[in-house]
Amino acid sequence: MKERLIIIKVGGKIVEEPDTLSKLLADFAAIPGKKLLVHGGGRSATKVAASLGIESRMVDGRRVTDAEMLKVVTMVYGGLVNKNIVAGLQARGVNAFGLTGADMNVILSEKRPVKEIDYGFVGDVKCVDAARLSSLISEGIVPVMAPLTHDGQGHLLNTNADTIAGETAKSLAVFFDVSLVYCFEKKGVLRDEADDESVIPVLTPKLFEQYVAEGVIKGGMIPKLENAFSAIDAGVKEVIITSASAIGTTEGTVIVR
Amino acid sequence: MKERLIIIKVGGKIVEEPDTLSKLLADFAAIPGKKLLVHGGGRSATKVAASLGIESRMVDGRRVTDAEMLKVVTMVYGGLVNKNIVAGLQARGVNAFGLTGADMNVILSEKRPVKEIDYGFVGDVKCVDAARLSSLISEGIVPVMAPLTHDGQGHLLNTNADTIAGETAKSLAVFFDVSLVYCFEKKGVLRDEADDESVIPVLTPKLFEQYVAEGVIKGGMIPKLENAFSAIDAGVKEVIITSASAIGTTEGTVIVR
Repeated sequence: MKERLIIIKVGGKIVEEPDTLSKLLADFAAIPGKKLLVHGGGRSATKVAASLGIESRMVDGRRVTDAEMLKVVTMVYGGLVNKNIVAGLQARGVNAFGLTGADMNVILSEKRPVKEIDYGFVGDVKCVDAARLSSLISEGIVPVMAPLTHDGQGHLLNTNADTIAGETAKSLAVFFDVSLVYCFEKKGVLRDEADDESVIPVLTPKLFEQYVAEGVIKGGMIPKLENAFSAIDAGVKEVIITSASAIGTTEGTVIVR
Repeated sequence: MKERLIIIKVGGKIVEEPDTLSKLLADFAAIPGKKLLVHGGGRSATKVAASLGIESRMVDGRRVTDAEMLKVVTMVYGGLVNKNIVAGLQARGVNAFGLTGADMNVILSEKRPVKEIDYGFVGDVKCVDAARLSSLISEGIVPVMAPLTHDGQGHLLNTNADTIAGETAKSLAVFFDVSLVYCFEKKGVLRDEADDESVIPVLTPKLFEQYVAEGVIKGGMIPKLENAFSAIDAGVKEVIITSASAIGTTEGTVIVR
């Protein structure tokens, strides 16, 4: 039997405000067993960019990353956000170590081809070195992954944190029974956006299709759930969509086949 | 017999300009065997700070690090500079991984006590986890260390890169025959600052004392050499002071007992 590994992805908002970050770190530290954290940082990146006189341009919720913006996200994701999480977890007894995909060549990606939109220095994940991550995790180390990868040619690439969490979960499913938890602002996938209590408890591919057709599920939640189903298909045991404040509870939407 | 480990410390100027960085990465990649890189980044920090409207304040060549400046150095050292070096080394076949002292709790430090000057969030190294570093290095991984440590209480601390290189070299001397190389702008310790060719080939403690008394060696070179001698005392095999462009050659000043 494989050991359980919990992979938690938290968005920018949670890790960027001292109060929510502090609660997250405490909740994450309290999770027993093997674990891995993937974080965003978009809001801080936008703020730092603005302070530097660099405008943030988003298309379909994805950041267009030119050379200057790449510098900003490298500073914010790889430095500011990542290292503060690591130091915060160390203070709570978690032997965290922060990394990007370039570190130990853990995630290799390729620059997204230019079609209608040129996203710039944005990476699509090609492969995850699960053996390396698994070996670290087995030694009691807790990886904290920033949403940056590299192309193996010396270029860092801005990479969606949900994708990193999903691809990492899939590749680690060979070594562990992986629970993948996507945290965001709501308590789960909502049936009614205006009603925070309308959490859909379970989602199957069929239900998902139906909800998308009906317009119940829309926008940024669609790629998030597509990632979730693709993770399940690839051997991830369960995917949970919930709020960061619910870490350690049973709240949220569970994605199953 | 212990295996050789070469620890190279490079200053900000070299890693911050594309041309010199590129040469450094190629030279570093060409070094055979076990190796470790420690980098600075002060010039970039000053530049980014200025762009953010934050003034850099230096006392005796050391940066005063208030909360805002700590954010800047965390972004620049831990993110921008570190991750670009890592990606650049990966492209050259070096399995680099970037870290601060907080990562895997590799370097624990304490906030410098306030005496005449309050340096702010600046750390003095307390201990280095040489066993952890040694185990990574033995697996063929090349640590790339940013000049940041942590206090174990959740605070990152700006830490002198020369000190990090020296303390890391000392602690790793248990596991390896360590050569510690400090790179800076000149070809070595100069007898005459105006003459780049006046490199002092060998420095003993006695010669050092004499040169300091005579005013031949002064300023920032004094703590650098004090670090070097303390490293030799602690078991480091040799300390070499040279220019980054001389990596792989026999140029420079060799510090011996």
